[in-house]
Parts: sequence; structure tokens; C-alpha cells
Amino acid sequence: MNGTPAGPVSENTIIIIVGTNRKHSMSRQIAEYYHTILQQLHADSYVLDLTGLPSDFTTTALYENTGKNPGFNQFKEVVERARKLVFIVPEYNNSYPGVLKAFIDGMSYPNGLANKKVALVGVSANHQGGALALSHLNDIFSYLGTHTLALRVKLAQIKVHWKDGALHNDLYRMLLQQQAQQLIDF
Amino acid sequence: MNGTPAGPVSENTIIIIVGTNRKHSMSRQIAEYYHTILQQLHADSYVLDLTGLPSDFTTTALYENTGKNPGFNQFKEVVERARKLVFIVPEYNNSYPGVLKAFIDGMSYPNGLANKKVALVGVSANHQGGALALSHLNDIFSYLGTHTLALRVKLAQIKVHWKDGALHNDLYRMLLQQQAQQLIDF
Amino acid sequence: MNGTPAGPVSENTIIIIVGTNRKHSMSRQIAEYYHTILQQLHADSYVLDLTGLPSDFTTTALYENTGKNPGFNQFKEVVERARKLVFIVPEYNNSYPGVLKAFIDGMSYPNGLANKKVALVGVSANHQGGALALSHLNDIFSYLGTHTLALRVKLAQIKVHWKDGALHNDLYRMLLQQQAQQLIDF
Amino acid sequence: MNGTPAGPVSENTIIIIVGTNRKHSMSRQIAEYYHTILQQLHADSYVLDLTGLPSDFTTTALYENTGKNPGFNQFKEVVERARKLVFIVPEYNNSYPGVLKAFIDGMSYPNGLANKKVALVGVSANHQGGALALSHLNDIFSYLGTHTLALRVKLAQIKVHWKDGALHNDLYRMLLQQQAQQLIDF
Repeated sequence: MNGTPAGPVSENTIIIIVGTNRKHSMSRQIAEYYHTILQQLHADSYVLDLTGLPSDFTTTALYENTGKNPGFNQFKEVVERARKLVFIVPEYNNSYPGVLKAFIDGMSYPNGLANKKVALVGVSANHQGGALALSHLNDIFSYLGTHTLALRVKLAQIKVHWKDGALHNDLYRMLLQQQAQQLIDF
Repeated sequence: MNGTPAGPVSENTIIIIVGTNRKHSMSRQIAEYYHTILQQLHADSYVLDLTGLPSDFTTTALYENTGKNPGFNQFKEVVERARKLVFIVPEYNNSYPGVLKAFIDGMSYPNGLANKKVALVGVSANHQGGALALSHLNDIFSYLGTHTLALRVKLAQIKVHWKDGALHNDLYRMLLQQQAQQLIDF
Repeated sequence: MNGTPAGPVSENTIIIIVGTNRKHSMSRQIAEYYHTILQQLHADSYVLDLTGLPSDFTTTALYENTGKNPGFNQFKEVVERARKLVFIVPEYNNSYPGVLKAFIDGMSYPNGLANKKVALVGVSANHQGGALALSHLNDIFSYLGTHTLALRVKLAQIKVHWKDGALHNDLYRMLLQQQAQQLIDF
Repeated sequence: MNGTPAGPVSENTIIIIVGTNRKHSMSRQIAEYYHTILQQLHADSYVLDLTGLPSDFTTTALYENTGKNPGFNQFKEVVERARKLVFIVPEYNNSYPGVLKAFIDGMSYPNGLANKKVALVGVSANHQGGALALSHLNDIFSYLGTHTLALRVKLAQIKVHWKDGALHNDLYRMLLQQQAQQLIDF
């Protein structure tokens, strides 16, 4: 669970994607918390942190170079092998991070994400909790044939509610639990 | 007008951004066509092609490295100096390209794009013309305090309508002309 | 199948909602076509046409009058009893019809549409096929806990492709078949 | 300023639309507060409350009946005469109220709202402040050629911040002031 895609990952492992390449991100901490929830629900999961992406992947792994960057391919294969994924999406400029979308743009088309089942979690310092980021992302997944859970969890004001490595908000904890269970049953 | 930000660009130059780093993109051709329209309307403009971005800018120019990549800063300064911009936005996976958003994520916050005036052009091979890409982008610009023209031009089925370096669609030509004039008057 | 909610409708009947109260709408014709597809797939379905709504439902069936209009309640009960629904959504002003949303606003909250499974079909005279209408509607359903199929069918330029009561577009026919089957299997 | 469109309204009067027909709505109170702000800035304004719409307008003023309902036409004319408008938009089911959209669907097409200048204010009991409602509405206005201010004011948790007829939130007051001034200068 160290963010590099080297672990023993099967198609039944739920992949939890840290949706930014910012180092030491809040989203990484939320991803690890989600991993703990899934453990308690006896579901195998794995945190995939985009900080590990090759730094030049937007030129060496897209377009005419699709499939040619071995470092990127490791990430891509983990995602494409999975049947279920969780996206932890920090709100950047009222949408999802550009890096997350560039990562999705590097998946195999049209079948890289088709028919997979996905849970969406938004994270923000402000009051929105990534409401628009998740709406935008849902449009992308609809296009790719990826099934999203109706329940989008929006963790607003995360800096107030996350302290000392723990989530001090009962509603947030309840919603994440509920979503994780829905993803398992999906 | 060669896509590198070295030209004589003033704050009155309208910057036409090629919204992808894909080489030889259709968006680049549309950008150059838009440049011609602006010339005919006696407005100074400059095509800024994201293919010229440093290949590792998503790690070396964002977050703790904001402002530290000289190659990225050249692009950033051209954008931030301008008062008016045109975004040529190819539709990737039912939204804008991840690279375009990562570029925007690298602007100065909160004032990098505030109060600028922007025209949006969507480009797609399919029937949508980037309708959702432009909607998503408008949410970002609203957040950044960037004023967008109401008229979003959607160039759908571009491979049918663009042949031999020319736009063979009267409606598209008319809409781009109209939008360019509106941007000048904005 | 006459658009009034008086028929023998069980919880296993798929309700096909004509998403406008415009009389003799194209959406009504598409709804009846969808009904035929479901028949061929041996699934029971029923067309619910919003033309039958009480003309004053926006005042007599909402807010302090929720649940008090018997004519509206007939429609509401058909929808709330169903487990699966199809929404045929004409594009009005780049979004869904106001009347469709007012109808949704009159459902029981929070559980009226929760956990139901929904297929979305957009209809337009223009090239978009209701792309934004369906995106907006998906945000609503996400909020209500209603599960939507990833595949949004967009019937653009419907006046070109629908002639003499038949759909003359192989791709559209195939997509509707595929979506109908997915809804049955959902 | 009593919500019926009988007052002395000129094209220079800023029309503040209460975006719901719910009686005694919070949005009405916000609209009146906005009216006060505009008075202090020496701008003429008028509150138009959709509670005054004919109760059957969704059948008697739309489609084949466009323009035929005198009661609806009074509202329509006030809106269409104005050059600048403010929309106070309560969040209903993660979008704008159906009634507001039905009202917009009854405007003259294509020129009823074209070229007007509009400020958007979202209102909600929850944390979002109508973020998605305003995004959806912006798509509609873009289509209609209506210019929207970049600054969308989102009044989240309004029941906490509005007490005894006053807005007890400095940030909200500041944002509304700023937006009102921008609309005057637009």
C-alpha cells in the first residue's frame, strides 16, 4: 500500500486512486483511510498514488506514445485490471486536477475503463467538497462506459475535519462507510 | 506565431491557446485560422501552443514548485500578461484535455486569470463539438473570476468540415467571426 | 400505454417518462418506440406522458401542497412504485425541460427516487442530442440516490432521423437496444 | 417592489428574480436584501417574485400557447425589457427549481434573453450554496446569448446565516456588494 503499483493486485482488488500528483496530499491520507474502511469490510484494496507517475508522462505516454512508457504502463495496468475503483478527487480550481484527467486520457480507448464500477469522493478546503469536480468527472465516466455510484461523497472543509491523521466528523465517516459498502455490493 | 512564447507580445495581444500538447493537432490549425480572422479584424493576436510546455511541467511547475520552472514561466507570463484570450479546446473523453487543466492549475492563484476576457471554442470529431468540455471549463473560469463570452463555438465533426487547411462550413466560419468580433468589443 | 397513469402497473413495470408536457411531442414518439424495444426484450413497460399532469401542479402539488393534488399523486405513485425508469428528455434551452424538473421536485423527499435504476435518453433537433440536459439530470439523480446507467443515448438531429413514425438511423436503434438491455440487466 | 410586475419598470431597472414560486421563500428575502444593496449603490431595481405567475402557466403559456397568457406576459415583458437581471436561485434537488426553468422556457426565443447581463446568486440550506444549480443555469444562459458575471455568489447554510431579516455573515454581505457593483459596471 505504498503508492507504487508493484503490489499483489488482482482483478478483485479495489483500487483507490489518489487523484493528484501533489506530494503528501490530503487526498493520500483520505485514500489510506478509505483503505482501512475497506479492510474492516473484508475487501481487498490498494492505494495508487499519482505522485508515482513518470514526471514527463503527459508527453511520453499520450497520443502517438500511448502504451510506450513502461513506468506509466504499470499504473495503467493496475487500473485497467481492476473491476472496482475509488477516486479521491481534490478540488483544484472548481474542477478535478488536470493531472488526474491527463492520467485518464492515457488509458486505453475505448475499453480501458468500460464497465468498471467506481465510487467518487471529493475533497476540498472550501465548502463545496468538490461538487463540480465530481460532476465533471461523472460526465467523463459516463462517456467511457464506467458505472458510478449515485452517492458522491463530498468532504468539504477537510482541514477543519481531518486532524492528527483522523477524520473528526461523524457524518463524513458514515458516508464513506456507506459508500464503501455500496461499492462492495455494486 | 510559432507556438513558442518568445514573440513581441503586449497586454493588448489576444492570446490564442491551443488547448492540448498533442503535436500537429487540429486545434493548432483552428488556432491559426482564428489568428487570421483576428488579423482581418485588425486585432493583434498570438498562437500559444501547449506542445511547447516542458515535458515534466506537471511535477516541476506545480505545487511546491510553482513559479520555479523557467520554461513553464514563459508560457505563464504570456497568459497572465494578456487581457483577452481564446481557448481552442479539443474534446478528450467528454471533457477538456487534462494537460490544459494542468496548465491552468499552474497559473498564479488567485489572480493569474482574474478579470481577463475569454472566448471558448470546442473542437471534436464527434457530434458534440466539446459541449461538455466548454461547460466544465466555464465553471473553472467562473471560479477564477475570468469573464467568458456567452457564445461558445462548438466545431463538431471537424474532420468532415476541415479539409486542405480550410474550414468548409459557412456556419462555423460565421460563428467564429462573430465570436472574434465580440471578443474585440468585450 | 395511453399516457395516463391508470393502467395495470406493477413495481416490475419499467416506466418510460415523456419528459415534457408539450402535446404530441417527439419525445412521446420516442417513448413509444422504446416501449416497443422493451416488448421485444420481453420486459413490461408503460409510457407516462407529462402532458397528463394537472395544469396547475406547480402550485397545487409542490411545497406546502406536497401530496395534496390527487391528479398529481397518480403520476407520482406510478413513478415511486417502479424500480426502473427511462427518461426521454428533450433539450430545451440547453438543459432539461422546466416541467420535467418541477415534476421531480414534486416527488417525495428524500426517498421518492432513491435506489431506483434509470436510463437517460436525450432528444434534440440540433447536433447535441441533449448532452448538457442529461449531464444536469445526472447531477439531480446522483443527489437523489438514483442509479443511472453510464450509457446516455443522445438522439441528435431527431427531425432528420425520425420519419413517418420510424427511426431511420442504425446507430440510434442499436444504442437504444443496447441501453434497454442494460436497463433490464441493471 | 411587491412581486407583481405592475410597477414603474424601465429598461434601466435591474430586475431581481426570485427563482421559485414557493410562498414566503428565503430567496424572496435575499432578493429584497439585494434590492437594498442596489438602492445604496443608487441603482434602480425591482423584485419579481415567481409566486405571482399564473398557476397553470406551464400549459397556458408554453409551446403552442406561447405569448397567449396575459398574466404570464406581464412577467415576461418585465424580464425582456430589462438590460440587467439578478437571479436568486434556491437549490432544489441539486439543481435550479423546475419552475424557474419553465419560466425561462416561456421567454421569447431566440431573442428573449439575448445580450442581457445577469448576476447569479445561489441559496441553500446545505453546504453547497447551489453550486451545481448555478453551473446548470450558466449553460442555459450561454445558449441564450445572455452574459453572466464570472462571480457566482453561493449562499450556503442560509438558515444559519439569515436571522431576523438580516444576513449575519460578513463574507456573504461583501460578496453580494461586490457582485452588485460588478453588475452595475457590467
